[in-house]
Amino acid sequence: MVEPSGILTLLTDFGLQDPYVGVVKGVLYTFAPQIQIIDLTHEIEPQNIFSGAWSLFWSYTYFPKGTVHLAVIDPGVGTERSILLAKTKDYYFIAPDNGILAPILDTHEHQLFHAYREWGLEHQSTTFHGRDLFAPLAGRLITTQKIQELGAPAKDYVKLPHFFPEFQKNKILGLLAHVDRFGNLITNIPFEKLPSPPFEIHIKDYKMVVHHIFKSYHEGKGKDFFGLKSSNGCLEIASYHRNLAKNWNLKGGETIEIPLKAEFKEK
Amino acid sequence: MVEPSGILTLLTDFGLQDPYVGVVKGVLYTFAPQIQIIDLTHEIEPQNIFSGAWSLFWSYTYFPKGTVHLAVIDPGVGTERSILLAKTKDYYFIAPDNGILAPILDTHEHQLFHAYREWGLEHQSTTFHGRDLFAPLAGRLITTQKIQELGAPAKDYVKLPHFFPEFQKNKILGLLAHVDRFGNLITNIPFEKLPSPPFEIHIKDYKMVVHHIFKSYHEGKGKDFFGLKSSNGCLEIASYHRNLAKNWNLKGGETIEIPLKAEFKEK
Amino acid sequence: MVEPSGILTLLTDFGLQDPYVGVVKGVLYTFAPQIQIIDLTHEIEPQNIFSGAWSLFWSYTYFPKGTVHLAVIDPGVGTERSILLAKTKDYYFIAPDNGILAPILDTHEHQLFHAYREWGLEHQSTTFHGRDLFAPLAGRLITTQKIQELGAPAKDYVKLPHFFPEFQKNKILGLLAHVDRFGNLITNIPFEKLPSPPFEIHIKDYKMVVHHIFKSYHEGKGKDFFGLKSSNGCLEIASYHRNLAKNWNLKGGETIEIPLKAEFKEK
Repeated sequence: MVEPSGILTLLTDFGLQDPYVGVVKGVLYTFAPQIQIIDLTHEIEPQNIFSGAWSLFWSYTYFPKGTVHLAVIDPGVGTERSILLAKTKDYYFIAPDNGILAPILDTHEHQLFHAYREWGLEHQSTTFHGRDLFAPLAGRLITTQKIQELGAPAKDYVKLPHFFPEFQKNKILGLLAHVDRFGNLITNIPFEKLPSPPFEIHIKDYKMVVHHIFKSYHEGKGKDFFGLKSSNGCLEIASYHRNLAKNWNLKGGETIEIPLKAEFKEK
Repeated sequence: MVEPSGILTLLTDFGLQDPYVGVVKGVLYTFAPQIQIIDLTHEIEPQNIFSGAWSLFWSYTYFPKGTVHLAVIDPGVGTERSILLAKTKDYYFIAPDNGILAPILDTHEHQLFHAYREWGLEHQSTTFHGRDLFAPLAGRLITTQKIQELGAPAKDYVKLPHFFPEFQKNKILGLLAHVDRFGNLITNIPFEKLPSPPFEIHIKDYKMVVHHIFKSYHEGKGKDFFGLKSSNGCLEIASYHRNLAKNWNLKGGETIEIPLKAEFKEK
Repeated sequence: MVEPSGILTLLTDFGLQDPYVGVVKGVLYTFAPQIQIIDLTHEIEPQNIFSGAWSLFWSYTYFPKGTVHLAVIDPGVGTERSILLAKTKDYYFIAPDNGILAPILDTHEHQLFHAYREWGLEHQSTTFHGRDLFAPLAGRLITTQKIQELGAPAKDYVKLPHFFPEFQKNKILGLLAHVDRFGNLITNIPFEKLPSPPFEIHIKDYKMVVHHIFKSYHEGKGKDFFGLKSSNGCLEIASYHRNLAKNWNLKGGETIEIPLKAEFKEK
């Protein structure tokens, strides 16, 4: 049983222009003066639970065992939605019960709790639970309280559909899961499940043929676009030194379809 | 008398695209290797003293006692403007004397000093006092020097008008003090001073009637807009999952007027 | 011989909207739990090596001796480009061999190594060496390994042309090296090499005369524009409370020419 190590990651849709993230950290330091806080990102599109879940799922394993992952994308703040406290073999998680933890919980053995609100600040607003509830819970978990003291045992949690692709007989149905700063298009389709190139890929209104799978961006110099294995092991569509998402006017969330040819199916 | 704890918050209008914030931190670590630095925000609109004062005023109490709050929005850099060192019961503050600390000093007992420039770096530029003066002062305050050794006792400081609203017989005169990342409109009018809804609110050219006061954003689903108690206790105007500021083309700084009805006045 | 102090600066073009920077930090903490990480900036324009070199060159000396500076602007990720480990008298550097370290290496005695890839993560992607190679190398350097254990001794490195200006008989040829958040135009021309004002300056299609050199932005109130000594000692062109770069539609990278008058040459 790994104990909280004192390292906490923070993932929100608060942005950095307001002092909200700083204030959450102030409360965390108040409860846990020895805490080490690492920002995962705060630029998740407001209320975009899928995007938060994606960023967390592919990042959390790169942190030391015992890290507490705090994720506050919380469109239901102030309602009766519950707050999840979760523990897998190596990590702790705190987040609203809205699907953001679902991909991790779906795929890992875990203990789950619904947080008691009494562990929050004495005066709790209805619009900023990151400060008033999540931070005190995380600070207590890192210092004085066991996870089972902070919440009631729970089994169910809100699911997040379409996080993983669907493999049908004649096609793979996936998502354009993430567009990064460089304009690379990162899908949720595992690289090793792809047919051999050339293969078709349909994104939004585009029907394209992926002719090239390269190992590096540099190899694709001079090509319009190409596929490669993204750093998380999924299919990525990119262009050398060119923001493909801007050029194609694509945003995260579009459905993707990859038709499977007969010869592939019979493998 | 609380001593500096080693935690420092940093609030600037430097943005994050330049290495300025990083360099200020480098100097802070040079003077105080054990320092813990928390970014409040660096995305204050360039030279917007009001906005910096607002972000600091509503944030600083959420940090551990003994925190040093360093705020560098400094349009007067390189002039004869003085640098304030202040101490309230629980916190320390360092900032240019331009109004950014005024709301805190106006409302709290404090000791005040004008910093001696000799405590800065040996070579001081005229354009980057965050690096050359503020950081060395803060670093020394956290480690080796008492606040009274770093500056000369002072009484006066530059005021910041309109930070708090004005309560007249037949109206409240306030400000749209802050527009946050979500497009929520945060006023400087204390929630408990509001008339009962429905009440009129005038912002810029808009004359609106606030019909609904809700407890959460979610409650306001389906409404054009509504009021709620912001996380700092002031009136906030918002819309569910919609960036109201963008929709109404509003920015922080607009004056707000709330007419008071006769029946309210006679309460 | 200064040892790595445990402080590391991080400079990338990853931006902050993706979890990439957070993940790099996760790996750093995994290898070096006591590390102190300071963000220099992550908003370098994608693949802009010059801009990264500029930000690093003028910042790194403001950090405590023994700081490790990790700079990942890496358009050649996944190719055979080597990774440099460098040590000057007071600092350590890790970066791809693409010119980003060249201005520092050109001007300082140093030891240089080409990193062994075996010190990276067991599973290495071809698109995210910040996570898989640079972070493990930096983490090991700070904790268990000597720099000479992490790489093979090297002499050559990729150069970065035009970083320093060229002084010709009748003109100075320089660059608009950086445009900061405030729209100030920062050149690579040392202030003390300038002719006395008034002097001409040609930027892109503009031919202007710098009539005024001021000590502070505030002194320039009411003037269209003026020169001053930037905080790094180079010529800066600015305007009081006005974003000059936006007004003149200028970006970093433009060439600058300052004609030298006869009387100046004969000094």
